[in-house]
Amino acid sequence: MYTGIVETKSITFEVDLKLDSGRILGPLTLAYETYGELNASRSNAVLVAHAWTGNAHLAGKYSAEEQKPGWWDAIVGPGRLLDTDRYFVICSNVIGSCYGSTGPASVNPKTGKRYNLSFPVITVRDMVRAQKLLIDHLGIGKLLTVLGGSMGGMQALEWATQFPERIASAIVLAATPHPSAQAIALNAVARWAIFNDPDWKKGEYRKNPKNGLALARGIGHITFLSDESMTAKFDRRFSARDGLFDFFGQFEVERYLSYNGYNFVDRFDTNSFLYLAKALDLYDAAWGCESLEEAFTPIAAPLQFFAFSSDWLYPPYQTEKMVRTLEKLSKRVEYHLIDSSYGHDAFLLEHETFAPMVRGFLEKLG
Amino acid sequence: MYTGIVETKSITFEVDLKLDSGRILGPLTLAYETYGELNASRSNAVLVAHAWTGNAHLAGKYSAEEQKPGWWDAIVGPGRLLDTDRYFVICSNVIGSCYGSTGPASVNPKTGKRYNLSFPVITVRDMVRAQKLLIDHLGIGKLLTVLGGSMGGMQALEWATQFPERIASAIVLAATPHPSAQAIALNAVARWAIFNDPDWKKGEYRKNPKNGLALARGIGHITFLSDESMTAKFDRRFSARDGLFDFFGQFEVERYLSYNGYNFVDRFDTNSFLYLAKALDLYDAAWGCESLEEAFTPIAAPLQFFAFSSDWLYPPYQTEKMVRTLEKLSKRVEYHLIDSSYGHDAFLLEHETFAPMVRGFLEKLG
Repeated sequence: MYTGIVETKSITFEVDLKLDSGRILGPLTLAYETYGELNASRSNAVLVAHAWTGNAHLAGKYSAEEQKPGWWDAIVGPGRLLDTDRYFVICSNVIGSCYGSTGPASVNPKTGKRYNLSFPVITVRDMVRAQKLLIDHLGIGKLLTVLGGSMGGMQALEWATQFPERIASAIVLAATPHPSAQAIALNAVARWAIFNDPDWKKGEYRKNPKNGLALARGIGHITFLSDESMTAKFDRRFSARDGLFDFFGQFEVERYLSYNGYNFVDRFDTNSFLYLAKALDLYDAAWGCESLEEAFTPIAAPLQFFAFSSDWLYPPYQTEKMVRTLEKLSKRVEYHLIDSSYGHDAFLLEHETFAPMVRGFLEKLG
Repeated sequence: MYTGIVETKSITFEVDLKLDSGRILGPLTLAYETYGELNASRSNAVLVAHAWTGNAHLAGKYSAEEQKPGWWDAIVGPGRLLDTDRYFVICSNVIGSCYGSTGPASVNPKTGKRYNLSFPVITVRDMVRAQKLLIDHLGIGKLLTVLGGSMGGMQALEWATQFPERIASAIVLAATPHPSAQAIALNAVARWAIFNDPDWKKGEYRKNPKNGLALARGIGHITFLSDESMTAKFDRRFSARDGLFDFFGQFEVERYLSYNGYNFVDRFDTNSFLYLAKALDLYDAAWGCESLEEAFTPIAAPLQFFAFSSDWLYPPYQTEKMVRTLEKLSKRVEYHLIDSSYGHDAFLLEHETFAPMVRGFLEKLG
């Protein structure tokens, strides 16, 4: 039974994982959490894939005293969308991250030193290859669904195209078959902010290069919100403690970016941030294929897509390109455009907008 | 007669200009250029106001050998939109800039040292107050029109509201009555990039802090283009000289931002960039008034507005807010939404899209 009190587990696979780059990564540790119970037929497993700076702590609390539950607790638990009385929910930290899975901040057992920039460039497909080791280990032949938003949605897509027989469905929120030049540009300036920071030391820092990482994260926050949501939240309000004509005076929106940027420094590794940004930019659902059509041909499971009207990082037209391709291939596909002012973040903030459709979709799977 | 060979003139006003901040600036030097001849009735003067990083060198060349003509040469000259056989065209560098007008890089005659951060925070209205000194000096009672895009459009608006009797019309392109929180946020991260650069030294640098300024400009370039134009220009092409899986490998769009960012370092002063970014963010056409309606009430001249469909920095809805307000006040106003994929930069790149309407508007003035 899922009690609401959870722990992060860890497993190390003594493998040599061949990556898209041709390089080898191993051994490979994955941090993960599970909620609910796997049923006797092993048919109720749901994998939730996290976004860029997420982790395995999807739901619940480590102790009753913990202030905040996991990052998507709102949809996981008894009676919730991913009902833990019914489903066995799994979330694992992606490789390349810094929350317990092997990433650039991990010690390379072969050298006894942190990988840092000797860590190989990884792709979203590589993340899913590593995830599959965990699903195999848990003895799950077929996942009932893989669900995720943003980079999590890309992972769900990769399950659908790379391991079509291993999933009964996939649910893809706020994702893209390949980020646009504009999305790449926004990650590029975030990277640049870190490269500019003398404390980054080409990845050989002891302490996070705080100014560079905070700025990089600040840039990210702009892309997660929307023109409309920023106006609703901050409009043109000026910080009450600053003078309007002070050179260093700040608008409220500046303070927000700065506050959130510097907060991030305490919770994320800079090199991980860079490696995952790279994985996002490189993401191409059609990688290795001539076309998206060819890439989607192996898909066997029904797919459900959600796009959010004000998401300008991965705008709806990008999801719609995937939906049209699947329709052309006569695949089972369902698409919902959610009207929202919350931008890319809508998938995390407004679960009630898509929960009924997800519930319906899962019901149909039986 | 306008020969195509031009020179930048300079004039110093021994004034104490009272600024919006309450501070005083003076003496005050303005760099400016003129093209064509002022007619006997002094009724053919057209003022063109430049954007953020522009200068007085609007058109023509300094010598036959100069490679590139002024920044908006395409619309200024015999037979061109601003026909120098007919109009006397003026362009002056704004205060706060670094192209000959008084700005943070100027030497403060009172101290013998560069202003740097002792320069007062200025507003677009302050820029126009300074411009008016020049127009007075040239003996022009009424400008036939003031035309400008982006920050230039804001200046045209300020002429219309602050000196309504001094203009016979104004033409406002790709502007806003007040930048949104998102636009401010994008300038905020650009500022932050400079503040992070140890070579900036709180404005007391001898040489431009190149990494910070280049990044700030790179961020700017993202806002000047659009999702569509970036896709058309770069799509997801990877630099041919880099490996896709090199940690430092770059997409073409990254190289573009980097190339243009570092180029900018040779041509613009960092503190000027910061002061003008601040002026943009602070810009509010309704400054000192209760509402935009109140601010627009004094307007006497007909106004023509252009917005560009893919401009996400100052999106069309912001121009439309001004147009609606003027219509409500029964002011003479004309509005054109130009369908363009070029983003904010469209006003500079696609003059043929609005030239016929501007020509028609000017004809009607007689």
